[in-house]
Formats: sequence, C-alpha cells, structure tokens
Amino acid sequence: MEKNAETYGEWYLDIVEKAGLSDKRYPIKGMNVWTPYGWKIMRFVDSFLREELDGTDHDEVCFPLLIPETEFKKEKDHIKGFDSEVYWVTHAGLDELDVRLVVRPTSETAMYPMFSLWVRSHQDLPLKIYQIVNTFRYETKQTRPFIRVREIHFFESHTCHDSEEDAQRQIEEDLEIVKRLMGRLCLPYFLLKRTDWDKFPGAHYTVGIDTVMPNHKTLQLGSVHHYRTNFSVPYDITYEDENGEHKYVHQTTYGMSERTLGALISVHGDEKGLCLPPSVAPFEIVIIPILGKNQAVDVAKAAKDLTNDLKKAGFRVKLDDRDDRPGSKYYDWEIKGVPLRLELGARDIENKVVTYARRDTGEKGTIPMDSLVDGINGVFDSITKNLSEKAWKFQMDSVTELSSVDDIPKDTEDTKLRIYRFGWCGSPECGHRFEDDNDIKILGTPYLHEEYNGKCIVCGKETDTPAYAARTM
Amino acid sequence: MEKNAETYGEWYLDIVEKAGLSDKRYPIKGMNVWTPYGWKIMRFVDSFLREELDGTDHDEVCFPLLIPETEFKKEKDHIKGFDSEVYWVTHAGLDELDVRLVVRPTSETAMYPMFSLWVRSHQDLPLKIYQIVNTFRYETKQTRPFIRVREIHFFESHTCHDSEEDAQRQIEEDLEIVKRLMGRLCLPYFLLKRTDWDKFPGAHYTVGIDTVMPNHKTLQLGSVHHYRTNFSVPYDITYEDENGEHKYVHQTTYGMSERTLGALISVHGDEKGLCLPPSVAPFEIVIIPILGKNQAVDVAKAAKDLTNDLKKAGFRVKLDDRDDRPGSKYYDWEIKGVPLRLELGARDIENKVVTYARRDTGEKGTIPMDSLVDGINGVFDSITKNLSEKAWKFQMDSVTELSSVDDIPKDTEDTKLRIYRFGWCGSPECGHRFEDDNDIKILGTPYLHEEYNGKCIVCGKETDTPAYAARTM
Repeated sequence: MEKNAETYGEWYLDIVEKAGLSDKRYPIKGMNVWTPYGWKIMRFVDSFLREELDGTDHDEVCFPLLIPETEFKKEKDHIKGFDSEVYWVTHAGLDELDVRLVVRPTSETAMYPMFSLWVRSHQDLPLKIYQIVNTFRYETKQTRPFIRVREIHFFESHTCHDSEEDAQRQIEEDLEIVKRLMGRLCLPYFLLKRTDWDKFPGAHYTVGIDTVMPNHKTLQLGSVHHYRTNFSVPYDITYEDENGEHKYVHQTTYGMSERTLGALISVHGDEKGLCLPPSVAPFEIVIIPILGKNQAVDVAKAAKDLTNDLKKAGFRVKLDDRDDRPGSKYYDWEIKGVPLRLELGARDIENKVVTYARRDTGEKGTIPMDSLVDGINGVFDSITKNLSEKAWKFQMDSVTELSSVDDIPKDTEDTKLRIYRFGWCGSPECGHRFEDDNDIKILGTPYLHEEYNGKCIVCGKETDTPAYAARTM
Repeated sequence: MEKNAETYGEWYLDIVEKAGLSDKRYPIKGMNVWTPYGWKIMRFVDSFLREELDGTDHDEVCFPLLIPETEFKKEKDHIKGFDSEVYWVTHAGLDELDVRLVVRPTSETAMYPMFSLWVRSHQDLPLKIYQIVNTFRYETKQTRPFIRVREIHFFESHTCHDSEEDAQRQIEEDLEIVKRLMGRLCLPYFLLKRTDWDKFPGAHYTVGIDTVMPNHKTLQLGSVHHYRTNFSVPYDITYEDENGEHKYVHQTTYGMSERTLGALISVHGDEKGLCLPPSVAPFEIVIIPILGKNQAVDVAKAAKDLTNDLKKAGFRVKLDDRDDRPGSKYYDWEIKGVPLRLELGARDIENKVVTYARRDTGEKGTIPMDSLVDGINGVFDSITKNLSEKAWKFQMDSVTELSSVDDIPKDTEDTKLRIYRFGWCGSPECGHRFEDDNDIKILGTPYLHEEYNGKCIVCGKETDTPAYAARTM
C-alpha cells in the first residue's frame, strides 16, 4: 500500500501487523502484546538510552508500580492533569484496601517521597536517576499501536539540583542526548517550548520533542521538563548547603516512550513495508542463496559460510535457506525492513563478490569478497545518511510559513494541513484565539534560537519569535 | 554482625540496607525501591537468563500487565491458587470498569488466549517464548526484601509442544539452563519434584529449585512446570497435525524471581557484608591508592593508569581516590562485596606488582604487573570455585538423614532444624501425616535419581525413593 497523507492511518496498521511488531488482539483495548520482532527493536532503543544515561552519570533504578493515593495527590496541578486517566487498584485478595493505589502514569509521585529521604546535603547533589518501565493511562481516544496505547513502554530520568542554573544545565545535557539518540534512529524532530497552558502538569516549563508524521500531524516522542521547586516544596525535598541553610532542590525530568518506535515505522517505512536504520534492525543483513541447477559450486554451503563469517565480524545476520522462491523471500524481508539483502549465486562466487540490494533505495550492486566488512559498513553508513536526510527533508518541507490565518485549510479533515510557522506576540489571549479559531494546536516556540522578524498573526504586534502549530496525533 | 542460624534474619536486613541494595521505606509495605547497586546485580542475572533463553531459541516478548477477570478465571485450579493474593483494578479515571482487571501474578492467563491465536499448525511448534517483568502478589505474611515481596521482579518462559515427550524434553533443557545459571551465581540447589498437594495450581507436575539459607530453611528460587494439556483445553490451544487432525498442545513453564538475589546475599555474605561472585559484581575490582609522604613515585597517577588499563581489558573497575583512610575504604567496599581489592603503593610500583586482597577469604598476595590480566582472571576463577564449593558444602552439610521422626527437634522455632532426607512410600496419607505431626513441609522427591534403600518413615513400607523436608522461607 502506498504511504501518503491519505493512506497513512491504514498503511500504519497494516505494517505493524505484517511486520509482526505487535499483536492488538489482546482482550483489553489499547493494551497490546509486544511480539518478538517489535520488542527487539524497542530494546535497541532502550539500550541506546541506557548507554547515554549511564555515560552521563545517571544511575538506573526501578520504583514500584503502585502509588498510594495520598502521595499521588500532593502536587495539585499534577493530579489535576492525571485524575481522569489513571487506573485504580482498590482491592487485594478478598480485601478492600484502606488507601487506594494508582497504577503509575509517570513516576514523580512514586519517586519524590523517597528523594526527600535520599537528599540530605549539597554533597548528595546532583541526584540523577532513570528507569525504563511501563506506565499506564486510561486513554479514551482511539488507540493505535505504539502511538496511543494504555500500557506504555517508557523511559524517564529524574534529577535534583542545588540551583535553577544547575537544573538548566541538566536540560541542556538532556537535549544533547535527544540529539544523539534521534541521530542514531535517523529521526528528525523539533524542540518546542510548550505554551503555558500545554506544559506538563506541575512543570515550570516543558520542551516537547515533536516529529512530523506522513499525514502532517505531529507526534510528541518525549519531553523535557524544568520543575524548579514545584515538586520539591510539596514533597519536602531539601538539602543543607555549605552554610548549614536548608533549601529546596530544583528538579528536572526527561521522558520518552515507545512512540519512538511508532515514529521509526511511520517516517522510514514505504509501500513495501518497514524500513529500519541498521542501528535498530534485529537483522541488519539477510542472506539469500540463489540456487541453480547442476552447479559446480556448492552455493548452499557458501551461503552458510558467509553467514558465519559475517556473524563473527559482529553483524546481525539471518540466512534464509527456506525451500522457497528468492522473490518470495525478498518480499518477506522487505516487509520486515531488513536494511541490506545479500544474494549469493554461483556467478557471484566465481567472481568473488556478493550481490546486494539496499532496502531504503532498492539500489543493487556488488561488494568484493575480500573487502566485505568495509563494503557493508560503507553501505550501512550510506543507508543511515539517506534515511536521515530524507526524513529531515520531509519534516522541513512540511512546514509552511503563515502570514495570514486564511491560508489554513478550513476543512478540519483536510489532509493538506501542514505544520505552520508564524509570528506570535506570546500573549495567551492571542494564542488561545489562534487555536480556537483554527482548530489547531500551538506546539510552542523554538527552544533553540531561530531568526524571525514578523508580526503576531492575531494582534499584528511586531515579534522576533515564531510559533509552530499543527494538528497532533 | 556474625551470620549464623540465629542471627540470619537480622543480619540479612542489615546487609541489604548497608550495601544499598534496596530501600524498603517506600510507602507501601513489601513494595521496595530497587536502588542502583541492587538493580545492577539483578540485571546481571537477567542478562544471563537472556543469553541462555536466546541461545535455546526462545523469543523474548512482553505481555500486558493487566488480565481481564474473565480470562483469569478459565482454569479452575489455577484461579483457586491465586484468588486470595491478587490485586484488582476496578476503576479507570472516573469510571468503574465493566470487567475487573487482575494485576498479573504470573502470565499464564494473559498469554494463553493469545497462544490460542498464534498456534495453528504443527509447523508453529514448538512455540518458545519468555519475558522478564514484574509480577504482583498480595502477601499477607511478613515481607523481606527480595525474598517475600509484593512486587516481584520475575522471569518466565512458556512453551507449547506437539506431544508430552517434546514438552518433557523442554523440561530437561530448562534444567540444564538452571544448572548453568546457578553455576555462574555459585549457588547450590536441590531439584525436587513437589508433592501433588504442593504443585503449581494447574500443573501436571512441578520441579522446585530450592537453596538452603543460613537458618537451614529452604528458599524456592524458581520452578519448572509440566502442564500437559491442563491449560490448553480451557484456553483452546490446538494445532493441526500432519494428518489434518486437531490436537491440544502440551505446555511447560519455567520461572525464577528476584529471590536469586536474596540467595546470593544470604549464601555468600559474611560478617563483613555482601560477598559477590565476580560474574554479578557491579565492580569486580576496587583500586585503592596507598599514598605516603614525600614519595618519589606518583601513586595517584599510577592508580589512575592502572584503572584505565584494567577497564580497557574489560574489567569493571572502581578507583576509590576519596580523601580518606585506606582502612575506611576497605570497610566500605567489603560491605558492598567487591570480589577483589587492589592496593597500589610506592613499594608495589617499585617492585612492579600490585597487592591484592580477596573478599571471599581475606587472603592477600601480589600479582606481577606484566601478567596482570591473567593474574586477576586466575584469582577470579579461584574465588568463583571457592564460593561455589563453600556454598555446596553448607547446603549438603545441612541435610540430615532421618530414620525416625523423633530426631526432629520439637521446638518449632528451633534453629537446630535441618533439611531432612528420609524414606517415603509416596502415599499422600503418609505425606500429610508426616507434615502435620512435625510442622514441616515435604519439599518433594529428587527429580534426578538418588540411590536409596529404606523404609517409609511413617508406614514402614520398603521404598527406593527418599523425600526431602524442611521449613521454608
């Protein structure tokens, strides 16, 4: 099926099923089974995050799933934001519980009572921890695998600092991690400081990490929050400074979810199926022996040897020696998005080469046997570069500069909708009016500086700050 | 604190806290926080299981946490076994749910409705999957970190086979995995086929994996179950065989929990603290520079270089260059159970050696700098061997051959209790009578053949099968 703005919704569900990424027939809507292929890809993303977090002196922990209602309700904005979408455990065995338990929607309220015990002195700061767990939200909107689910595979880091400035430095570190991670996934993104009415419940400010989907809606893959002392006050997280004074810590969080997998599928996939960057491909290479009749060379054996050699060289390789037509095998592995297909026939062996086909471009060629590892690594680099460039081009091409609200299509289902960039004076009045009049959401203002000279699209006041707006997934 | 049968309970809690393995101050009893050091050790155990399971063609999956009550209640014995100890989600957001949801206590009833969709033909068999997740039991007994908790870090594999024999072969494969895993952890164990009245709810038979604790009680670290068709019938998991006939699959499961960490602490620890096998030590080596006055050599720099060299060689190394007395550092790292301490002073550098101290025996010696990696690996091998031998000796020495029930101490709190081995005719009548009269549990009969010629301790009938009995943790 072709992937475009119109077909995207149906195309996505088709790919998720055909590539074997997830099974949505589990008897609770929006709680899907991670099948082996999808889970392997997710675990690569997890492992990249672990590398990054371990490498920046974060410690991995694992907090309990359940949170007492009494702890959950300590920060008022936070609970207002989550009240309507949490699951409640009310009974255990045959007993009704005295205090109801929330199934974690995010872990602030699980962690911060403990932070209050852990942080004593300035020497305990910064405290930097993270966990990779599943979280739970009672979604009432239509669910979609990896993108809108009720059990969400989730990474979250939480930090405490002795000053607002040190917390701000943490935000910068987080955004460097985002950059490296998204680079490895070949995914483009905007870093947008959310409007005050759209920031995380309890946050001082929120930076969203947004990627454009094929239907020109944006998907928030994650976010970074500066909490200032908004949580440390209700949870009483204080430290004693050098002068013996007790002060509240400044906090930040950074979280990303399985939506990264939803974006990988949506951004890189095409009419043939999934298209994976080598970095996250469960199999980077599939080897298909091309068997002929009366061959002087033992192709089957050569394919096995090639498989073993490449495994030894550290590649993730699948030998497809099923008794089936090569064309049918090509089809299967294209759906699965394997980045590189190697075909090995009698003539290749005679010529001391392997024939390859790239999944991303379909381009075919040969690699000499005597420089196979370098040759493959070269193709992988080229695939990674191509996927990344193509994805960034699509994302940037989706942005339309808006000088008047009249340029927004009026039909709300219009697939011609774009991401809009326009002048905004920053006032909530103009912001709300823009959103309400146009049934579109302001994603925020660029976190990193962008040159802009224009006028607020609502009130006409001069402004040097653009805003971005879009429909969101 | 000395570790012996009397002090064990208190000693254990002390070590868990001092070594920073877990924090039990979380505001729900029996749901503890995995702090970084404990979580790192647990993740080594997880990674060994992943290696083993991936290497035996199991696929990793991740099933939802919540199970609809309707699915949960399909297998009658199973639900009877769990009814009084599960957590119930009854509300979501502001709504009461139509069907209550169980928080997984184990995943049979989550997985098997899907297996019924996944298994179609004999070509889909064997189906071998596993997951590493947390499970939940509403414990009413006294909780204890890693040993009896309400949120349990858990590994479970589930398989489907076309015959009872193939399922039986799976059990053998599982027990080979147990053997290799326990070998890496230097932990001794018994494999005991549980009595019919103590098998897993729904199982055809259960093999328990039991390790003896310092108080001579046994701890079940995991178990392997043959289900025959006990679940495939209610969950309708069938396949079409070569002749087009529809048959029920035979199933097995194998599960182990965070109790492996409880056993690691209990079995290897001593009066100084934790004592870790190198395989699971977050730091295998701690390096302590011994700084003197007016030294001609730069010990601090040499210690840094040594740290980097050993890291490059693949060791997990901690350089403790805090401004503190060496003795105080020794004390800290002994509590944490670091297997090997390297001390580096001016004289060592002159002599081109490092001084080492083994955590397990306290033995000190030197290793020549020019064969450091081999030297360290040699010490590690010796530590692993020693820990394993010592642990097996303690386990086997705990077993008392029983020819009469009069030899069991009458005081139920008696710390002189042992593991008892005695003749049993196998009849439930004699088994129940033995358990009731002596307030002690029959763990089962050896899964692997043991020579025995004796008489049933209750009825006096000749038998060639011994039973094991103990108090359990």
